[in-house]
Amino acid sequence: MRYRLYYWPEIQGRGEFIRLALEDAGADYVDVLRRSGNFSLPKDRTPFALPYLVAGRTVVSQTATILQYLGPRLGLAPKGEDGRLWVHQLQLTIADWLAEAHDTHHPIGSGLYYEEQRAEAKRRAADFLAARLPKFLHYFDRVLRRSAAGYLLGRACSYADLSLFQMVAGLRYAFPAGFGRLEGRHGRIIALHDRVAARPRIARYLASPRRLPFNRMDIFRHYPELDRPGKNPKKT
Amino acid sequence: MRYRLYYWPEIQGRGEFIRLALEDAGADYVDVLRRSGNFSLPKDRTPFALPYLVAGRTVVSQTATILQYLGPRLGLAPKGEDGRLWVHQLQLTIADWLAEAHDTHHPIGSGLYYEEQRAEAKRRAADFLAARLPKFLHYFDRVLRRSAAGYLLGRACSYADLSLFQMVAGLRYAFPAGFGRLEGRHGRIIALHDRVAARPRIARYLASPRRLPFNRMDIFRHYPELDRPGKNPKKT
Repeated sequence: MRYRLYYWPEIQGRGEFIRLALEDAGADYVDVLRRSGNFSLPKDRTPFALPYLVAGRTVVSQTATILQYLGPRLGLAPKGEDGRLWVHQLQLTIADWLAEAHDTHHPIGSGLYYEEQRAEAKRRAADFLAARLPKFLHYFDRVLRRSAAGYLLGRACSYADLSLFQMVAGLRYAFPAGFGRLEGRHGRIIALHDRVAARPRIARYLASPRRLPFNRMDIFRHYPELDRPGKNPKKT
Repeated sequence: MRYRLYYWPEIQGRGEFIRLALEDAGADYVDVLRRSGNFSLPKDRTPFALPYLVAGRTVVSQTATILQYLGPRLGLAPKGEDGRLWVHQLQLTIADWLAEAHDTHHPIGSGLYYEEQRAEAKRRAADFLAARLPKFLHYFDRVLRRSAAGYLLGRACSYADLSLFQMVAGLRYAFPAGFGRLEGRHGRIIALHDRVAARPRIARYLASPRRLPFNRMDIFRHYPELDRPGKNPKKT
Protein backbone atom coordinates (compact mmCIF):
# COMPACT_ATOMS: atom_id res chain seq x y z
CA MET A 1 0.00 0.00 0.00
CA ARG A 2 1.34 3.41 -0.99
CA TYR A 3 0.10 6.10 1.35
CA ARG A 4 -0.40 9.65 0.20
CA LEU A 5 0.00 12.31 2.91
CA TYR A 6 -1.37 15.81 2.34
CA TYR A 7 0.11 18.47 4.55
CA TRP A 8 1.67 21.93 4.35
CA PRO A 9 5.10 21.48 2.80
CA GLU A 10 7.03 24.18 4.71
CA ILE A 11 6.41 23.10 8.29
CA GLN A 12 6.54 20.08 10.56
CA GLY A 13 3.21 20.96 12.12
CA ARG A 14 0.63 18.30 12.80
CA GLY A 15 1.76 16.41 9.72
CA GLU A 16 5.03 15.57 11.45
CA PHE A 17 3.24 13.17 13.80
CA ILE A 18 2.13 11.21 10.73
CA ARG A 19 5.50 11.46 9.01
CA LEU A 20 7.26 10.03 12.06
CA ALA A 21 4.98 6.99 12.03
CA LEU A 22 5.39 6.41 8.31
CA GLU A 23 9.16 6.86 8.53
CA ASP A 24 9.60 4.62 11.56
CA ALA A 25 7.69 1.85 9.82
CA GLY A 26 9.59 2.27 6.56
CA ALA A 27 6.23 2.71 4.85
CA ASP A 28 5.85 3.51 1.18
CA TYR A 29 4.46 7.04 1.18
CA VAL A 30 4.41 10.25 -0.79
CA ASP A 31 4.43 13.62 0.95
CA VAL A 32 2.25 14.96 -1.84
CA LEU A 33 2.44 18.70 -1.35
CA ARG A 34 6.21 18.68 -1.06
CA ARG A 35 6.33 17.35 -4.61
CA SER A 36 3.71 19.65 -6.03
CA GLY A 37 1.61 22.47 -4.68
CA ASN A 38 -1.40 21.24 -6.60
CA PHE A 39 -4.00 19.16 -4.91
CA SER A 40 -7.71 18.69 -4.87
CA LEU A 41 -9.80 17.87 -1.87
CA PRO A 42 -11.92 14.74 -2.01
CA LYS A 43 -15.48 15.68 -2.85
CA ASP A 44 -17.20 13.68 -0.16
CA ARG A 45 -15.70 13.38 3.28
CA THR A 46 -13.88 16.63 2.78
CA PRO A 47 -11.59 17.12 5.76
CA PHE A 48 -11.97 20.20 7.93
CA ALA A 49 -8.23 20.81 7.78
CA LEU A 50 -4.93 19.23 6.82
CA PRO A 51 -3.35 16.76 7.37
CA TYR A 52 -5.20 14.04 5.57
CA LEU A 53 -4.11 10.68 4.35
CA VAL A 54 -5.25 8.79 1.29
CA ALA A 55 -4.87 5.02 1.31
CA GLY A 56 -6.49 3.46 -1.73
CA ARG A 57 -10.12 4.52 -1.54
CA THR A 58 -9.88 5.53 2.12
CA VAL A 59 -9.47 9.20 3.07
CA VAL A 60 -8.75 9.96 6.72
CA SER A 61 -8.32 13.33 8.38
CA GLN A 62 -7.62 14.51 11.94
CA THR A 63 -4.09 13.64 13.03
CA ALA A 64 -5.13 11.29 15.83
CA THR A 65 -7.57 9.45 13.58
CA ILE A 66 -4.93 9.02 10.88
CA LEU A 67 -2.59 7.53 13.47
CA GLN A 68 -5.34 5.29 14.77
CA TYR A 69 -5.88 4.06 11.22
CA LEU A 70 -2.19 3.58 10.50
CA GLY A 71 -1.17 2.21 13.89
CA PRO A 72 -2.06 -1.47 13.54
CA ARG A 73 -1.13 -1.45 9.83
CA LEU A 74 2.38 -0.14 10.56
CA GLY A 75 3.01 -2.23 13.66
CA LEU A 76 2.81 0.88 15.85
CA ALA A 77 -0.29 -0.02 17.87
CA PRO A 78 -1.69 -3.10 19.53
CA LYS A 79 -4.14 -5.19 17.54
CA GLY A 80 -6.72 -5.63 20.29
CA GLU A 81 -9.47 -3.09 20.95
CA ASP A 82 -8.41 -2.46 24.53
CA GLY A 83 -4.85 -1.55 23.59
CA ARG A 84 -5.95 0.50 20.60
CA LEU A 85 -8.31 2.53 22.78
CA TRP A 86 -5.60 3.17 25.32
CA VAL A 87 -2.99 4.37 22.84
CA HIS A 88 -5.62 6.58 21.20
CA GLN A 89 -6.45 8.20 24.55
CA LEU A 90 -2.78 8.97 25.02
CA GLN A 91 -2.63 10.43 21.52
CA LEU A 92 -5.65 12.66 22.14
CA THR A 93 -4.03 13.94 25.31
CA ILE A 94 -0.93 14.77 23.27
CA ALA A 95 -3.22 16.52 20.76
CA ASP A 96 -4.62 18.67 23.58
CA TRP A 97 -1.10 19.43 24.76
CA LEU A 98 -0.01 20.38 21.25
CA ALA A 99 -2.99 22.72 20.82
CA GLU A 100 -2.04 24.44 24.06
CA ALA A 101 1.57 24.76 22.91
CA HIS A 102 0.29 26.40 19.73
CA ASP A 103 -1.95 28.78 21.62
CA THR A 104 0.99 30.17 23.58
CA HIS A 105 1.82 32.25 20.50
CA HIS A 106 -1.74 32.51 19.16
CA PRO A 107 -4.02 32.96 22.17
CA ILE A 108 -6.49 35.28 20.40
CA GLY A 109 -6.86 33.98 16.88
CA SER A 110 -5.06 31.64 14.51
CA GLY A 111 -5.85 34.02 11.65
CA LEU A 112 -4.06 36.97 13.26
CA TYR A 113 -0.32 37.54 13.26
CA TYR A 114 1.70 36.84 16.36
CA GLU A 115 2.60 40.51 16.53
CA GLU A 116 -1.09 41.33 16.85
CA GLN A 117 -1.40 39.24 20.02
CA ARG A 118 2.02 39.45 21.61
CA ALA A 119 0.83 40.90 24.90
CA GLU A 120 -1.74 38.14 25.36
CA ALA A 121 0.79 35.56 24.23
CA LYS A 122 3.12 36.56 27.05
CA ARG A 123 0.45 35.84 29.63
CA ARG A 124 -0.68 32.63 27.99
CA ALA A 125 2.88 31.36 27.68
CA ALA A 126 3.52 32.17 31.33
CA ASP A 127 0.47 30.14 32.31
CA PHE A 128 1.54 27.30 30.01
CA LEU A 129 5.01 27.12 31.56
CA ALA A 130 3.77 27.51 35.14
CA ALA A 131 0.66 25.36 35.14
CA ARG A 132 0.01 23.32 32.02
CA LEU A 133 3.41 22.05 30.93
CA PRO A 134 4.19 20.53 34.36
CA LYS A 135 0.77 18.87 34.40
CA PHE A 136 1.23 17.17 31.02
CA LEU A 137 4.79 16.12 31.85
CA HIS A 138 3.70 14.71 35.17
CA TYR A 139 0.97 12.71 33.48
CA PHE A 140 3.19 11.09 30.86
CA ASP A 141 5.87 10.49 33.44
CA ARG A 142 3.35 8.54 35.49
CA VAL A 143 2.28 6.47 32.49
CA LEU A 144 5.93 5.65 31.78
CA ARG A 145 6.57 4.76 35.40
CA ARG A 146 3.73 2.25 35.31
CA SER A 147 4.74 0.80 31.97
CA ALA A 148 8.24 0.25 33.34
CA ALA A 149 9.67 -0.88 30.02
CA GLY A 150 10.72 2.33 28.34
CA TYR A 151 7.76 2.94 26.02
CA LEU A 152 4.28 4.14 26.95
CA LEU A 153 2.65 0.78 26.38
CA GLY A 154 5.57 -1.31 27.58
CA ARG A 155 8.22 -2.91 25.39
CA ALA A 156 6.81 -2.05 21.99
CA CYS A 157 7.06 1.39 20.47
CA SER A 158 3.71 2.90 19.50
CA TYR A 159 2.75 5.96 17.49
CA ALA A 160 2.10 7.75 20.79
CA ASP A 161 5.77 7.28 21.71
CA LEU A 162 6.83 8.84 18.42
CA SER A 163 4.47 11.74 19.16
CA LEU A 164 5.84 12.19 22.67
CA PHE A 165 9.32 12.34 21.14
CA GLN A 166 8.07 15.13 18.86
CA MET A 167 6.58 17.04 21.80
CA VAL A 168 9.95 16.98 23.57
CA ALA A 169 11.79 18.06 20.43
CA GLY A 170 9.34 20.87 19.79
CA LEU A 171 9.22 22.11 23.37
CA ARG A 172 13.00 22.12 23.57
CA TYR A 173 13.08 24.35 20.51
CA ALA A 174 10.28 26.67 21.61
CA PHE A 175 11.04 26.92 25.32
CA PRO A 176 14.72 26.14 25.93
CA ALA A 177 14.53 27.87 29.33
CA GLY A 178 11.00 26.91 30.40
CA PHE A 179 11.20 23.31 29.26
CA GLY A 180 14.86 22.99 30.08
CA ARG A 181 14.37 23.58 33.75
CA LEU A 182 11.75 20.80 33.92
CA GLU A 183 13.77 18.19 32.03
CA GLY A 184 15.69 17.07 35.08
CA ARG A 185 12.49 16.04 36.85
CA HIS A 186 11.28 13.89 33.98
CA GLY A 187 14.10 11.56 33.15
CA ARG A 188 11.74 8.86 31.88
CA ILE A 189 10.32 11.18 29.23
CA ILE A 190 13.77 12.34 28.15
CA ALA A 191 14.95 8.72 28.01
CA LEU A 192 11.96 7.91 25.78
CA HIS A 193 12.84 10.83 23.53
CA ASP A 194 16.40 9.55 23.20
CA ARG A 195 15.23 5.98 22.63
CA VAL A 196 12.96 7.10 19.78
CA ALA A 197 15.65 9.32 18.27
CA ALA A 198 18.00 6.33 18.18
CA ARG A 199 15.61 4.04 16.33
CA PRO A 200 17.45 3.40 13.07
CA ARG A 201 14.81 4.65 10.64
CA ILE A 202 14.00 7.66 12.82
CA ALA A 203 17.69 8.51 13.15
CA ARG A 204 18.06 8.38 9.37
CA TYR A 205 14.94 10.48 8.91
CA LEU A 206 16.07 13.14 11.38
CA ALA A 207 19.40 13.42 9.56
CA SER A 208 17.72 13.69 6.16
CA PRO A 209 16.42 16.77 4.32
CA ARG A 210 12.92 15.32 4.73
CA ARG A 211 13.00 16.46 8.36
CA LEU A 212 12.23 20.15 8.09
CA PRO A 213 13.85 22.48 10.60
CA PHE A 214 11.69 24.10 13.27
CA ASN A 215 10.75 27.63 12.31
CA ARG A 216 8.51 30.53 13.24
CA MET A 217 5.77 29.54 10.81
CA ASP A 218 5.24 26.31 12.73
CA ILE A 219 3.23 25.11 15.72
CA PHE A 220 6.28 25.20 17.97
CA ARG A 221 7.81 28.67 17.86
CA HIS A 222 10.68 30.19 19.75
CA TYR A 223 10.14 33.76 20.87
CA PRO A 224 12.49 34.70 23.72
CA GLU A 225 9.84 36.93 25.27
CA LEU A 226 7.53 33.93 25.69
CA ASP A 227 10.18 31.69 27.24
CA ARG A 228 10.39 33.27 30.65
CA PRO A 229 9.77 30.69 33.34
CA GLY A 230 8.79 32.17 36.66
CA LYS A 231 6.59 34.90 35.16
CA ASN A 232 3.30 35.13 36.99
CA PRO A 233 0.41 34.80 34.52
CA LYS A 234 -1.95 36.50 36.98
CA LYS A 235 -0.15 39.79 36.58
CA THR A 236 -1.42 41.76 33.62
CA MET B 1 -23.84 -3.92 30.41
CA ARG B 2 -24.13 -1.20 33.03
CA TYR B 3 -21.92 1.75 32.18
CA ARG B 4 -20.44 3.97 34.84
CA LEU B 5 -19.78 7.56 33.77
CA TYR B 6 -17.44 9.74 35.83
CA TYR B 7 -17.86 13.45 35.30
CA TRP B 8 -18.25 16.66 37.25
CA PRO B 9 -21.76 16.63 38.68
CA GLU B 10 -22.62 20.35 38.45
CA ILE B 11 -22.05 20.99 34.75
CA GLN B 12 -22.95 19.63 31.35
CA GLY B 13 -19.39 20.09 30.14
CA ARG B 14 -17.72 17.43 28.04
CA GLY B 15 -19.62 14.74 29.91
CA GLU B 16 -22.85 15.89 28.27
CA PHE B 17 -21.70 14.50 24.93
CA ILE B 18 -21.51 11.08 26.58
CA ARG B 19 -24.78 11.50 28.49
CA LEU B 20 -26.63 12.31 25.27
CA ALA B 21 -25.41 9.11 23.66
CA LEU B 22 -26.28 6.97 26.67
CA GLU B 23 -29.70 8.62 27.00
CA ASP B 24 -30.55 8.36 23.31
CA ALA B 25 -29.75 4.66 23.35
CA GLY B 26 -31.69 4.04 26.55
CA ALA B 27 -28.51 2.54 27.98
CA ASP B 28 -28.19 1.32 31.54
CA TYR B 29 -25.78 3.79 33.12
CA VAL B 30 -24.90 5.45 36.38
CA ASP B 31 -23.71 9.06 36.47
CA VAL B 32 -21.49 8.16 39.38
CA LEU B 33 -20.45 11.53 40.76
CA ARG B 34 -24.00 12.83 40.80
CA ARG B 35 -24.80 10.08 43.27
CA SER B 36 -21.74 10.47 45.41
CA GLY B 37 -18.77 12.79 45.39
CA ASN B 38 -16.45 9.94 46.23
CA PHE B 39 -14.49 8.23 43.55
CA SER B 40 -11.13 6.73 42.97
CA LEU B 41 -9.16 6.83 39.78
CA PRO B 42 -8.14 3.54 38.23
CA LYS B 43 -4.54 2.81 39.15
CA ASP B 44 -3.34 1.90 35.70
CA ARG B 45 -4.55 3.77 32.66
CA THR B 46 -5.30 6.77 34.80
CA PRO B 47 -7.09 9.30 32.63
CA PHE B 48 -5.59 12.73 32.18
CA ALA B 49 -8.95 14.33 32.91
CA LEU B 50 -12.66 13.60 33.28
CA PRO B 51 -14.87 12.31 31.74
CA TYR B 52 -14.10 8.66 31.85
CA LEU B 53 -16.28 5.65 31.39
CA VAL B 54 -16.05 2.27 33.08
CA ALA B 55 -17.57 -0.70 31.28
CA GLY B 56 -16.76 -3.92 33.05
CA ARG B 57 -12.97 -4.09 33.08
CA THR B 58 -12.59 -1.45 30.40
CA VAL B 59 -11.77 2.15 31.36
CA VAL B 60 -11.92 4.74 28.59
CA SER B 61 -11.15 8.46 28.79
CA GLN B 62 -11.15 11.32 26.31
CA THR B 63 -14.68 12.23 25.22
CA ALA B 64 -14.20 11.32 21.57
CA THR B 65 -12.63 7.98 22.44
CA ILE B 66 -15.48 7.16 24.81
CA LEU B 67 -17.96 7.89 22.03
CA GLN B 68 -15.94 5.82 19.61
CA TYR B 69 -16.09 2.94 22.07
CA LEU B 70 -19.81 3.35 22.78
CA GLY B 71 -20.93 4.17 19.25
CA PRO B 72 -21.24 0.71 17.70
CA ARG B 73 -22.42 -0.77 21.02
CA LEU B 74 -25.27 1.74 21.31
CA GLY B 75 -26.28 1.71 17.66
CA LEU B 76 -24.93 5.25 17.21
CA ALA B 77 -22.12 4.52 14.76
CA PRO B 78 -21.62 2.35 11.70
CA LYS B 79 -20.10 -1.08 12.25
CA GLY B 80 -17.58 -0.92 9.41
CA GLU B 81 -14.14 0.63 9.83
CA ASP B 82 -14.65 3.18 7.09
CA GLY B 83 -17.82 4.58 8.66
CA ARG B 84 -16.38 4.50 12.16
CA LEU B 85 -13.34 6.47 11.03
CA TRP B 86 -15.51 9.05 9.33
CA VAL B 87 -17.81 9.67 12.30
CA HIS B 88 -14.76 9.88 14.56
CA GLN B 89 -13.19 12.54 12.35
CA LEU B 90 -16.39 14.55 12.61
CA GLN B 91 -16.37 14.12 16.38
CA LEU B 92 -12.76 15.31 16.66
CA THR B 93 -13.64 18.38 14.63
CA ILE B 94 -16.49 19.05 17.07
CA ALA B 95 -13.98 18.58 19.91
CA ASP B 96 -11.75 21.25 18.37
CA TRP B 97 -14.74 23.54 17.99
CA LEU B 98 -15.77 22.98 21.60
CA ALA B 99 -12.26 23.76 22.84
CA GLU B 100 -12.35 27.03 20.92
CA ALA B 101 -15.78 27.87 22.38
CA HIS B 102 -14.30 27.28 25.84
CA ASP B 103 -11.29 29.43 25.15
CA THR B 104 -13.49 32.44 24.34
CA HIS B 105 -13.87 32.92 28.09
CA HIS B 106 -10.55 31.39 29.10
CA PRO B 107 -7.99 32.48 26.51
CA ILE B 108 -5.08 32.80 28.96
CA GLY B 109 -5.44 29.94 31.39
CA SER B 110 -8.05 27.43 32.48
CA GLY B 111 -6.79 27.76 36.05
CA LEU B 112 -7.43 31.50 36.19
CA TYR B 113 -10.80 33.13 36.80
CA TYR B 114 -12.68 34.66 33.90
CA GLU B 115 -12.39 38.04 35.59
CA GLU B 116 -8.61 37.73 35.40
CA GLN B 117 -8.71 37.43 31.60
CA ARG B 118 -11.75 39.44 30.60
CA ALA B 119 -9.89 41.84 28.32
CA GLU B 120 -8.27 38.99 26.39
CA ALA B 121 -11.58 37.11 26.33
CA LYS B 122 -13.23 40.01 24.55
CA ARG B 123 -10.74 39.82 21.74
CA ARG B 124 -10.78 36.05 21.53
CA ALA B 125 -14.59 35.96 21.48
CA ALA B 126 -14.65 38.58 18.73
CA ASP B 127 -12.31 36.44 16.66
CA PHE B 128 -14.37 33.34 17.39
CA LEU B 129 -17.59 35.01 16.23
CA ALA B 130 -16.01 36.66 13.20
CA ALA B 131 -13.73 33.91 11.90
CA ARG B 132 -14.01 30.56 13.60
CA LEU B 133 -17.72 30.03 14.22
CA PRO B 134 -18.64 30.68 10.56
CA LYS B 135 -15.93 28.28 9.45
CA PHE B 136 -17.16 25.41 11.62
CA LEU B 137 -20.79 26.03 10.68
CA HIS B 138 -19.92 26.13 7.02
CA TYR B 139 -18.10 22.84 7.32
CA PHE B 140 -20.91 20.94 9.01
CA ASP B 141 -23.43 22.50 6.69
CA ARG B 142 -21.50 21.12 3.76
CA VAL B 143 -21.36 17.65 5.30
CA LEU B 144 -25.13 17.76 5.83
CA ARG B 145 -25.72 18.97 2.29
CA ARG B 146 -23.83 15.97 0.94
CA SER B 147 -25.50 13.49 3.25
CA ALA B 148 -28.88 14.78 2.05
CA ALA B 149 -30.84 12.72 4.54
CA GLY B 150 -30.96 14.87 7.65
CA TYR B 151 -28.17 13.34 9.70
CA LEU B 152 -24.43 13.70 9.19
CA LEU B 153 -23.98 10.14 7.95
CA GLY B 154 -27.30 9.92 6.13
CA ARG B 155 -30.48 8.38 7.50
CA ALA B 156 -29.16 7.01 10.77
CA CYS B 157 -28.44 9.20 13.77
CA SER B 158 -24.87 8.94 15.06
CA TYR B 159 -23.19 10.19 18.20
CA ALA B 160 -21.74 13.04 16.13
CA ASP B 161 -25.29 14.22 15.40
CA LEU B 162 -26.06 14.27 19.12
CA SER B 163 -22.87 16.26 19.65
CA LEU B 164 -23.76 18.73 16.92
CA PHE B 165 -27.12 19.22 18.61
CA GLN B 166 -25.26 20.02 21.83
CA MET B 167 -23.02 22.53 20.07
CA VAL B 168 -26.07 24.38 18.76
CA ALA B 169 -27.75 24.34 22.18
CA GLY B 170 -24.61 25.59 23.89
CA LEU B 171 -23.80 28.27 21.34
CA ARG B 172 -27.37 29.56 21.49
CA TYR B 173 -26.99 29.93 25.23
CA ALA B 174 -23.54 31.51 25.14
CA PHE B 175 -23.87 33.72 22.08
CA PRO B 176 -27.54 34.53 21.49
CA ALA B 177 -26.57 37.49 19.33
CA GLY B 178 -23.44 36.15 17.65
CA PHE B 179 -24.81 32.70 16.93
CA GLY B 180 -28.33 33.97 16.37
CA ARG B 181 -27.39 36.05 13.40
CA LEU B 182 -25.76 33.04 11.71
CA GLU B 183 -28.63 30.61 12.27
CA GLY B 184 -30.57 31.75 9.22
CA ARG B 185 -27.71 30.75 6.92
CA HIS B 186 -27.46 27.25 8.30
CA GLY B 187 -30.92 25.79 8.12
CA ARG B 188 -29.61 22.24 7.76
CA ILE B 189 -27.78 22.45 11.06
CA ILE B 190 -30.76 23.94 12.85
CA ALA B 191 -33.01 21.26 11.35
CA LEU B 192 -30.61 18.61 12.64
CA HIS B 193 -30.73 20.21 16.09
CA ASP B 194 -34.52 20.09 16.06
CA ARG B 195 -34.56 16.53 14.75
CA VAL B 196 -32.29 15.37 17.58
CA ALA B 197 -34.29 17.31 20.20
CA ALA B 198 -37.45 15.53 19.03
CA ARG B 199 -36.04 12.04 19.36
CA PRO B 200 -38.25 10.51 22.06
CA ARG B 201 -35.56 9.56 24.58
CA ILE B 202 -33.68 12.82 24.04
CA ALA B 203 -36.89 14.82 24.46
CA ARG B 204 -37.59 13.04 27.74
CA TYR B 205 -34.02 13.57 28.88
CA LEU B 206 -34.05 17.27 28.08
CA ALA B 207 -37.25 17.68 30.10
CA SER B 208 -35.86 15.75 33.06
CA PRO B 209 -33.80 16.99 36.02
CA ARG B 210 -30.93 14.91 34.68
CA ARG B 211 -30.36 17.63 32.06
CA LEU B 212 -28.50 20.28 34.00
CA PRO B 213 -29.10 23.90 33.06
CA PHE B 214 -26.35 25.82 31.33
CA ASN B 215 -24.44 27.98 33.77
CA ARG B 216 -21.33 30.11 34.18
CA MET B 217 -19.26 27.27 35.58
CA ASP B 218 -19.60 25.39 32.34
CA ILE B 219 -17.84 25.21 28.98
CA PHE B 220 -20.50 27.31 27.30
CA ARG B 221 -20.89 30.59 29.18
CA HIS B 222 -22.97 33.61 28.50
CA TYR B 223 -21.26 36.92 29.18
CA PRO B 224 -22.95 39.78 27.34
CA GLU B 225 -19.64 41.54 26.83
CA LEU B 226 -18.34 38.55 24.84
CA ASP B 227 -21.41 38.28 22.64
CA ARG B 228 -20.86 41.27 20.41
CA PRO B 229 -20.84 40.25 16.77
CA GLY B 230 -19.19 42.77 14.52
CA LYS B 231 -16.38 43.59 16.94
CA ASN B 232 -13.03 43.63 15.21
CA PRO B 233 -10.60 41.27 16.95
CA LYS B 234 -7.65 43.13 15.45
CA LYS B 235 -8.37 46.19 17.54
CA THR B 236 -6.80 46.02 20.95
